[in-house]
Amino acid sequence: MPKLSSVPLPLSAVRITDAFWERESDLIRRVVLPYQWDALNDRVPGAAPSWWMHNMRAAARAVAARKAGKPYVPRHKADSIVVEGPEPARADQDAFYGWVFQDSDGYKWLEAVSYQLIQHPDPELRRHAQEAVDAIRAAQEEDGYLDTYYTLTGIERAFTNLKDHHELYCFGHLTEAAAAWYEATGQEDLLDVVRRFAACISRRFGPGRERGCPGHEIAEMALLRLYEATGEEQWRELADFFLDVRGTEPSTFALEENRRRKQQGLPELPVSAERYAYYQAQVPVREMTEAVGHAVRQMYLCSGMADAARLNGDQAMREACLRLWRSAVREKMYVTGGVGGTHVGEAFSRPYDLPADTAYSETCAAVGLVFFARRMLQLEPVSEYADVMELALYNTVLAGIALDGKRFFYVNPLEVDPAACETDERLSHVKPERQKWFSCACCPPNIARLLSSLGAYMVTQNADALFIHLYISSELDVCLNGFPLKLRLEADLTRDGRVTLTVLSGKAEGTLAFRIPGWADGFTADTGDRGTRQEGGYLYVTGSWAEGDRVTLDFSMPVRVLAGHPLIRETAGQVCYARGPLVYCAEEADNGPDLHLLRACPKAEAAVERLEIDGVSLPALRVAAGRLPRDEGPLYRPWKEAEPEDVRLTLIPYFAWANRGRGEMRVWLRL
Amino acid sequence: MPKLSSVPLPLSAVRITDAFWERESDLIRRVVLPYQWDALNDRVPGAAPSWWMHNMRAAARAVAARKAGKPYVPRHKADSIVVEGPEPARADQDAFYGWVFQDSDGYKWLEAVSYQLIQHPDPELRRHAQEAVDAIRAAQEEDGYLDTYYTLTGIERAFTNLKDHHELYCFGHLTEAAAAWYEATGQEDLLDVVRRFAACISRRFGPGRERGCPGHEIAEMALLRLYEATGEEQWRELADFFLDVRGTEPSTFALEENRRRKQQGLPELPVSAERYAYYQAQVPVREMTEAVGHAVRQMYLCSGMADAARLNGDQAMREACLRLWRSAVREKMYVTGGVGGTHVGEAFSRPYDLPADTAYSETCAAVGLVFFARRMLQLEPVSEYADVMELALYNTVLAGIALDGKRFFYVNPLEVDPAACETDERLSHVKPERQKWFSCACCPPNIARLLSSLGAYMVTQNADALFIHLYISSELDVCLNGFPLKLRLEADLTRDGRVTLTVLSGKAEGTLAFRIPGWADGFTADTGDRGTRQEGGYLYVTGSWAEGDRVTLDFSMPVRVLAGHPLIRETAGQVCYARGPLVYCAEEADNGPDLHLLRACPKAEAAVERLEIDGVSLPALRVAAGRLPRDEGPLYRPWKEAEPEDVRLTLIPYFAWANRGRGEMRVWLRL
Repeated sequence: MPKLSSVPLPLSAVRITDAFWERESDLIRRVVLPYQWDALNDRVPGAAPSWWMHNMRAAARAVAARKAGKPYVPRHKADSIVVEGPEPARADQDAFYGWVFQDSDGYKWLEAVSYQLIQHPDPELRRHAQEAVDAIRAAQEEDGYLDTYYTLTGIERAFTNLKDHHELYCFGHLTEAAAAWYEATGQEDLLDVVRRFAACISRRFGPGRERGCPGHEIAEMALLRLYEATGEEQWRELADFFLDVRGTEPSTFALEENRRRKQQGLPELPVSAERYAYYQAQVPVREMTEAVGHAVRQMYLCSGMADAARLNGDQAMREACLRLWRSAVREKMYVTGGVGGTHVGEAFSRPYDLPADTAYSETCAAVGLVFFARRMLQLEPVSEYADVMELALYNTVLAGIALDGKRFFYVNPLEVDPAACETDERLSHVKPERQKWFSCACCPPNIARLLSSLGAYMVTQNADALFIHLYISSELDVCLNGFPLKLRLEADLTRDGRVTLTVLSGKAEGTLAFRIPGWADGFTADTGDRGTRQEGGYLYVTGSWAEGDRVTLDFSMPVRVLAGHPLIRETAGQVCYARGPLVYCAEEADNGPDLHLLRACPKAEAAVERLEIDGVSLPALRVAAGRLPRDEGPLYRPWKEAEPEDVRLTLIPYFAWANRGRGEMRVWLRL
Repeated sequence: MPKLSSVPLPLSAVRITDAFWERESDLIRRVVLPYQWDALNDRVPGAAPSWWMHNMRAAARAVAARKAGKPYVPRHKADSIVVEGPEPARADQDAFYGWVFQDSDGYKWLEAVSYQLIQHPDPELRRHAQEAVDAIRAAQEEDGYLDTYYTLTGIERAFTNLKDHHELYCFGHLTEAAAAWYEATGQEDLLDVVRRFAACISRRFGPGRERGCPGHEIAEMALLRLYEATGEEQWRELADFFLDVRGTEPSTFALEENRRRKQQGLPELPVSAERYAYYQAQVPVREMTEAVGHAVRQMYLCSGMADAARLNGDQAMREACLRLWRSAVREKMYVTGGVGGTHVGEAFSRPYDLPADTAYSETCAAVGLVFFARRMLQLEPVSEYADVMELALYNTVLAGIALDGKRFFYVNPLEVDPAACETDERLSHVKPERQKWFSCACCPPNIARLLSSLGAYMVTQNADALFIHLYISSELDVCLNGFPLKLRLEADLTRDGRVTLTVLSGKAEGTLAFRIPGWADGFTADTGDRGTRQEGGYLYVTGSWAEGDRVTLDFSMPVRVLAGHPLIRETAGQVCYARGPLVYCAEEADNGPDLHLLRACPKAEAAVERLEIDGVSLPALRVAAGRLPRDEGPLYRPWKEAEPEDVRLTLIPYFAWANRGRGEMRVWLRL
């Protein structure tokens, strides 16, 4: 395994030039991050307040007061998940508002900004980021503790509800931010904050001390990342501790619950772990077999587990990762790369239960699937991981953000009837149009941090080879067997499957491995006189590389008509269209209302055309189909062969839906 | 309209001899009603307590105490819909327990017992019924008020929450019971109770007094029924008042809500009616266009409206009934005759929204649809009404009760995967097996009162003709143009469509009208030398009738393969099987698991066979179909024509499902 395991290129070594993806990254930098900064400061009219900066500043005052010997009197009690506030202008300046995990929104923003700064020095963004870092530092307690919720609602109750109160989740995001900020600036100011917070956590929890683990995972992967970035062993130890405690008996979540119940005079609950599947704490991690519970939590846990398996050479952990991958991807994933079949708990449903209209498929869960997939790729270069990473990225992750970068989806249904969403309580979680911001605003900054660090997902490297997983036009500074090479990767998967790799400078011997995408019907390759072999879905090209050398690959990218596994009830008798990494959908804007009356003709030819939506040129499909009439006949009638009218449909990439106002949408079309 | 309007035969004139239906009625008498008597007395081990007799006795003591000048101190406050109690043995003997509408369960039982007593004198049932009547009488307040919930939780708050607290609903069921008890026994003891309660209500509500109407309808139809039975005008006046107030501005529900809010210091709400669609109080009844809100409420209201239209010759009311009928039956009815597409509020969903697995289709709503259909038939003899009445009766109503009469369904799904029901919160209302009793036990006694009064649904009569709506073997004492006739009707729709009518005695001239069922492909008729004509789906046979005369009809009863309207998303690409009035389903017991892998072959022949389930011989269908393999392939794959394996399915009548233990069931089969 150590031989196979690979690491991504540093972000600074990847300069994305891709027309499609650079537009997205640019949007994040020019529109999304400045907008989010305003949101974090409660300056976006008509959007739910974030309270992030408010809470940091209030906490800083509370910390300062405590240092000065003046005890802070909490305005709210540390017992609810969300403290609703008034309009920011009328807020109590010393009170906490928002969700218990509100701190993480700013941490995610700071992480995304850091990634952007690595490639695009931007003095204003940098200044805002420093302002955020300084606000965070000021809010840290003397003993290193840092969580504005408990600082402002009762610091003495810190660490008493790890299951629900997200302290270690916020710690995890802070750690990710600190690693990114350090990578971007070389500054250790935020890293020092994390070091002090980690020390505070470690004084309480750890081998021989109190048992405990995060109710919402992310600290695991964040700590292991910081370990890789800094080489500091303490991070790995804390990550391993959190992973090892999870799901063991007696359940730490039950124990802390019972401590609270005892204080309230309530009888104790059983302390067995099985009740905590929602938090992925039902069994020890190495015994896990099925992706369950809250989908984002499960994906973040899997990411941490895959990192731990790689860094510790932990075979049992690796096998658990494989089982969870298969469960999530081969039994519980939408065709759009989304996960989370039920809104009840924003969770994984049963295997093959993938409803289209009541789907949850949270944007953050798709982001988490990308994290998990890259880490599985690092464990072993097998193209299935990259296929899924690409699928989630080009479809559900991108669908989370409007083409203008100003609105976001939290939930990503595969079928929408706006009239139904607006009146039916069973669909109340499904929005037919993207929202400006959310009171629980996890998704927008999550998209920002992923799209700002895309370079970290494209290429990984091990002793064997340099693996090119995603075909995104870019310039890469790599090192092959000790010799530097500057490479240019050219591709545009929104148009065709042609890929060109050119050596811009340098000279080296070694292997470049190119992913053979699962969507390709076949391919041609011009690799010069180098030796080639195929393994795990990669084309390994071995030989010498020098300035001007070029490899060209042409992956056949037909329009694919896909069917679901027969155990997926929802997709029976339906097909969907895909081409390359893109899954397509039908929108009312192109095809009129009553999309459920359309009948697909899977044997008909499909034409690829360009279509402009909101000023962006996108690939569209034109396909022959049928349309049943809205008849006036009886509700039930003798069956006869349907006789639909011939129509021609326009299908657009799924990620681009809902950019032309309110209307119906469908990914799966009936036969 | 008065010329067309018809009335049912009195129950005493109909003696059911039908093998199929007499078994059901017998089951009600021998098993269900004695069981329910035990339930009402909290004597069924392992079943939720009913608290009915407990509450009546406690209320009687409270009333007696008040009479004696000793004020009763409530143990609970009149503010919740349900007061949960301990085990009956440990109950506070003077406290109210159960739902606010708990009284109605016993009233429904008493109504059903009364119907049974009309045809089957049974001293023990009669004794229990008298015990119930005496308990009710004793619980009546001195001023005529009767509702154990308010008597025991604060009588001074009576009539302050008509919207939610079901006082007038209980009054309605009491009125139905009193009418039935009077019909069965000639005794006016319960009628007197109702007269005093009605007088109490009328002192408070009525023209020139306070405005108000029931939050859960039934009083309307019950009062009109009592008016027809007794000729006492007061009942009609109160029914008309309730109907006329409903949906008018300012909403009486809003006004009473605002009175409560004022007491609590809360701001007042707008008083417009539109917010009260759940209670069918969003617009005045004559302006209603769509069946909305709680399905049982809507059906009961429609029944009362149809009675009022007939009795008052109210054309605007009749047109509203027609619109509501079309909405409920032509856009919102399951193929099984169930209504209520959503469990959110046990309500009608949007037109054509009829999900199979999350269906509500409450048993009581199907009972209500039967009530409504017979009343529409009384307005005008059009066979669509009888078709729907028959469909609801043979399918959803009967499905509500096990073949052994001991367990009941509240919710009637059209597709069940027990594993999903048991783990998925979105399906928590769907039970894969019938329950012994329910804490909210509206359905079991509702089935009992309908199946015990089946004779009232079979035949109606107007000046033109005697209409035979349902073909159920029976002996009928009728009067044609003033001359008595004794008729024998012979049929068994669970076998074939042959119907024979024989005159057993008497001699008369006139018209007998036979319904031509919607499910018949055609028919032959031997009517002797009498004149015949068809109108409104009835065959009118006019001539002289004397002992020994016979009419035979043979309605062709092919196996029908049905498809849903194209706007029903749920049934697209699926068919279901029906024969005569029966809709069929596939059960795991006959066809193995994974019923969603079955593929129907609508063009294949189907054979009719008998099958025994729980000792009852039932008609089954054997049909050719396909079955897809549970393949191990990828979750999404290129579409290709399916190649199912040939199988032969056994389909059983929908009403008979879930009598062989836990298993999957499907009505709609994929093509």
